[in-house]
Amino acid sequence: MYKITQVKNGVCASEGFFADGVSAGLKPDGAKDMAFIKSDVLCEVASAFTTNKMAAAPIKHFKAKGDFKTDFVLINSKNANAMTGGAGVEDIDEILSTCQNVTNPIMSSTGVIGVRLPKQKIIDGIKLFDFSQKNPSDAAKAIMTTDTFSKEIALKVELDDGSCFHIGAMAKGAGMINPAMATMLCFITTDAKVSSQDMQSALDEVVRKTFNAISVDGDTSTNDTVLVLSNSKSNSYDEDAFKEALFKVMHFLALEMVRDGEGATKLVTYNITGAKDDNEAEVVAKALSDSLLVKTALFGEDPNWGRIASTVGASGAECLEESLRISFDNLCVYDKGELYFDKEMERKAAIVMGHKKFTISCDLGIADGNFKAYGCDLGYEYVKINADYRT
Amino acid sequence: MYKITQVKNGVCASEGFFADGVSAGLKPDGAKDMAFIKSDVLCEVASAFTTNKMAAAPIKHFKAKGDFKTDFVLINSKNANAMTGGAGVEDIDEILSTCQNVTNPIMSSTGVIGVRLPKQKIIDGIKLFDFSQKNPSDAAKAIMTTDTFSKEIALKVELDDGSCFHIGAMAKGAGMINPAMATMLCFITTDAKVSSQDMQSALDEVVRKTFNAISVDGDTSTNDTVLVLSNSKSNSYDEDAFKEALFKVMHFLALEMVRDGEGATKLVTYNITGAKDDNEAEVVAKALSDSLLVKTALFGEDPNWGRIASTVGASGAECLEESLRISFDNLCVYDKGELYFDKEMERKAAIVMGHKKFTISCDLGIADGNFKAYGCDLGYEYVKINADYRT
Repeated sequence: MYKITQVKNGVCASEGFFADGVSAGLKPDGAKDMAFIKSDVLCEVASAFTTNKMAAAPIKHFKAKGDFKTDFVLINSKNANAMTGGAGVEDIDEILSTCQNVTNPIMSSTGVIGVRLPKQKIIDGIKLFDFSQKNPSDAAKAIMTTDTFSKEIALKVELDDGSCFHIGAMAKGAGMINPAMATMLCFITTDAKVSSQDMQSALDEVVRKTFNAISVDGDTSTNDTVLVLSNSKSNSYDEDAFKEALFKVMHFLALEMVRDGEGATKLVTYNITGAKDDNEAEVVAKALSDSLLVKTALFGEDPNWGRIASTVGASGAECLEESLRISFDNLCVYDKGELYFDKEMERKAAIVMGHKKFTISCDLGIADGNFKAYGCDLGYEYVKINADYRT
Repeated sequence: MYKITQVKNGVCASEGFFADGVSAGLKPDGAKDMAFIKSDVLCEVASAFTTNKMAAAPIKHFKAKGDFKTDFVLINSKNANAMTGGAGVEDIDEILSTCQNVTNPIMSSTGVIGVRLPKQKIIDGIKLFDFSQKNPSDAAKAIMTTDTFSKEIALKVELDDGSCFHIGAMAKGAGMINPAMATMLCFITTDAKVSSQDMQSALDEVVRKTFNAISVDGDTSTNDTVLVLSNSKSNSYDEDAFKEALFKVMHFLALEMVRDGEGATKLVTYNITGAKDDNEAEVVAKALSDSLLVKTALFGEDPNWGRIASTVGASGAECLEESLRISFDNLCVYDKGELYFDKEMERKAAIVMGHKKFTISCDLGIADGNFKAYGCDLGYEYVKINADYRT
């Protein structure tokens, strides 16, 4: 067995990791816009990237390296370095070549698409870094684009043998608020003594149920990135404990992203059960969390189970009017056609939908497949944020 | 060769078809809410329905009949008769059994999901029908739900041999304005001497490029229906001419639906070329017309080609940053990474986006696949319409 508790210091929770954020003049308001994570030794790396075929330059740059260890991650906001071609990749090499006292640096970017990086500003920004700093919260702030709050967490995992390890993380959200700001980034550090293979397989498993289960607007950015760095310093590891702690970290950050979705006022869990298999449950859950009609009904606090049923039916998954059950939290609103949705039930359902956080459950009644997805509502603020002309 | 000209009288353009709309008290404001199309002989039928697995009772009722001819279509608005189980299908039988002087009646519904039909009101409404009437425009008005204008068209096709036939149609839009109002319906009549098999194959081919190529909000309703009835009275037919006229009718109505999408201010054509095949071109075109980020950029008149590129990349279709070209009307804004999108180009692109109607073209530069889809923007009005609580 093992014990997981929350601790402080985000990406610096493990010994040997340093981080900070500085202002390099990329954000016009002078806010912090460049961050680093520095390790005093080379780290094992696990990664997950966007499936977008227009993957940004930093992702191409990373993938071109093949298997490798790293001791330095440079992150800038305000410019995604996407759709910048081979020149965008060369810019990264040029920028990283100016980094002092690092062995194998990598870079990650978020911001506007289709504009070359402001190289000189970034190179000047690097000179402001102090690698002895442990300011994880400033790093978390510097990677924000249109997030309204920074997102970080750290956990300590104590094993039965008396040993312990840490997992710390920071992220920025999927809120594609400004035109072409379209990225989720997450950086995770750990001192667990884990191989890159084990770390990668844990990441692959967990990412499906966390970052790949959330939706703000259904668009997949050019820059989505999750990186996990391990320096193995704790000499402690347990596969199950590591996976559970990684899940807790990523689940927390994923939900924080949804909560901070553009103009979002509600965090809704779509709990799909009884599907033909887990994949079909995932299809249904994501169809619901992406549906404009469902999202606007959430915003209007309209207990419109007809839209839920219609979206389930349109998802392509195997389903039947005669075996479907729909519930808002514990209130069943459609039960295989055998329930009469009267005014009283509508009143009760509207109360559930008035909450900031609730669960919409659909039991398809076909087999045992299940999946949980997380989404938010869509209101005027989303339109305002996304329709405003770039400034 | 053949000549196609526009004529009057919608679904009554062909001899032997009668239609009208009446008010049966389904719409609270007393507007017309029930329509019929009556033929004085039994007609061949072709049909296309929603792929939604929660297909409404009228669709189940129709499909249960197998191959058949019909002389009467009853249509009601305000109630979709969807998610009403076996009882919903029995309601249709009961209602249609009260129709006098018809041989093989069918029914079509649009409106709220999950509520049983107001049977008595509809049966009383049928008594108001006068089968000698030719009021196609009143029928077109009666089937409207949240459409802001009625949609009808009729064409005359003159062949080289001196014969001619007609195709007339009415439709209601895909504007899912009120919660659970979620249907497009289209009824087409013709006096072409066409077999039901030929009519069905023409419909299948045309529907893909018309009604299946439009998107208001990407949701697929429980009730979507296209019916084509032919009474063969003209004794005239030509396969190519029929197909072209059918395309013109359905293309016109499909674009009218997009133009009348909830709160839509723009009609945008997504012209995809150079894809691996036509199917991949269709995937890209629909990804663009469904993308929230693209739709809100249209509303904001933001010439943000980065969102276009990102959506193309996220669509799953084969594509490359190095072979992609993006144009707004005739203005190329991204050309395989070799174009510098400067302020002057941005100004020109913003002018295009200020228009009510324009084309966004993406040449993927892979092979010869192409497809055109049609979409609209998404603004405050959409949210207002869709978030408002049902009244």
